[in-house]
Amino acid sequence: MPHIKLSDELPGIGGAFAFRPETAKPMRELAQILLHQPNSLTPAERELIATYVSSLNDCYFCQTSHGAAAACHLGNQATVEQVKSNFELAPISEKLKSLLAIAGKVQQGGKHVTSSDIETARALGATDAEIHDTVLIAAAFCMYNRYVDGLDTWQPQNPEMYQQMGEHLAKEGYTTSSIKNGRA
Amino acid sequence: MPHIKLSDELPGIGGAFAFRPETAKPMRELAQILLHQPNSLTPAERELIATYVSSLNDCYFCQTSHGAAAACHLGNQATVEQVKSNFELAPISEKLKSLLAIAGKVQQGGKHVTSSDIETARALGATDAEIHDTVLIAAAFCMYNRYVDGLDTWQPQNPEMYQQMGEHLAKEGYTTSSIKNGRA
Repeated sequence: MPHIKLSDELPGIGGAFAFRPETAKPMRELAQILLHQPNSLTPAERELIATYVSSLNDCYFCQTSHGAAAACHLGNQATVEQVKSNFELAPISEKLKSLLAIAGKVQQGGKHVTSSDIETARALGATDAEIHDTVLIAAAFCMYNRYVDGLDTWQPQNPEMYQQMGEHLAKEGYTTSSIKNGRA
Repeated sequence: MPHIKLSDELPGIGGAFAFRPETAKPMRELAQILLHQPNSLTPAERELIATYVSSLNDCYFCQTSHGAAAACHLGNQATVEQVKSNFELAPISEKLKSLLAIAGKVQQGGKHVTSSDIETARALGATDAEIHDTVLIAAAFCMYNRYVDGLDTWQPQNPEMYQQMGEHLAKEGYTTSSIKNGRA
């Protein structure tokens, strides 16, 4: 049961967003810009960064919903699982691997990122804008994950629901609610 | 030197915000709602939560600027230092102590917050809205702190600059830039 009285119809961050629509608005907008708006990093790459950080933070709701969004963009779930278990072995670009390494450092704490991590990413073609967005996606998911788990939100284990949510997020983005009713 | 090319005139998060104004906008708005808009928690209490979490994350820029904002609201710096070193001994309400305990758990990870932490806060008068905002302030500063340090932003050690910044934040809030030029 959530730590505070949240809607029992909305899973995960949806319940928290409904509790406080004022803060939900900028939090949705930030996700929309970072994950959905046009970017030199593909939506799949950005969703994989979000999923990876959420898995490091052990946030079931976020890693499953964003993992489903990444799978929808990629057309397969296997790559998502490989990124979570060992991204070095995943069929993704070396540049994305270097950005995932930076994201993993940010998850531990901002000071863990080294000049050498940045040089490696740059040598593999990452731009300053891509490094910036990687750091901010990782930092933002350290917020979203803590928000979802710190309130002990309802996180059903219903694969079909997450698949629908992932498809909605991949196609429609983050500024509209992805589910009207998590139990539906 | 910052990991990416940021303005060399703007310290801390200011340089990162100037690099990507699109993401700065919702990040500023979130801070404005959580720390500056009317709330049953005073601005001083909310700034102390932000300062405490930033100190746990060892983010010099955020703990010093928000500590200065808290000191401006409180009219003294000593309480800010006590909250950072051992909040149990600080001259603050028992309710705020219980909320700082929750914020400290969120900093470690959302799952660290227990029902018992919540019951303690509630018994001391904390409402659901106050518990929600405490969790979200703590979660949001896990983002801001990682953004500031993950990009290795310029963080001058100039007490006067932070005092001016804190006064600006306390009086004007978060939707306008607090400093035009950090070196000024």
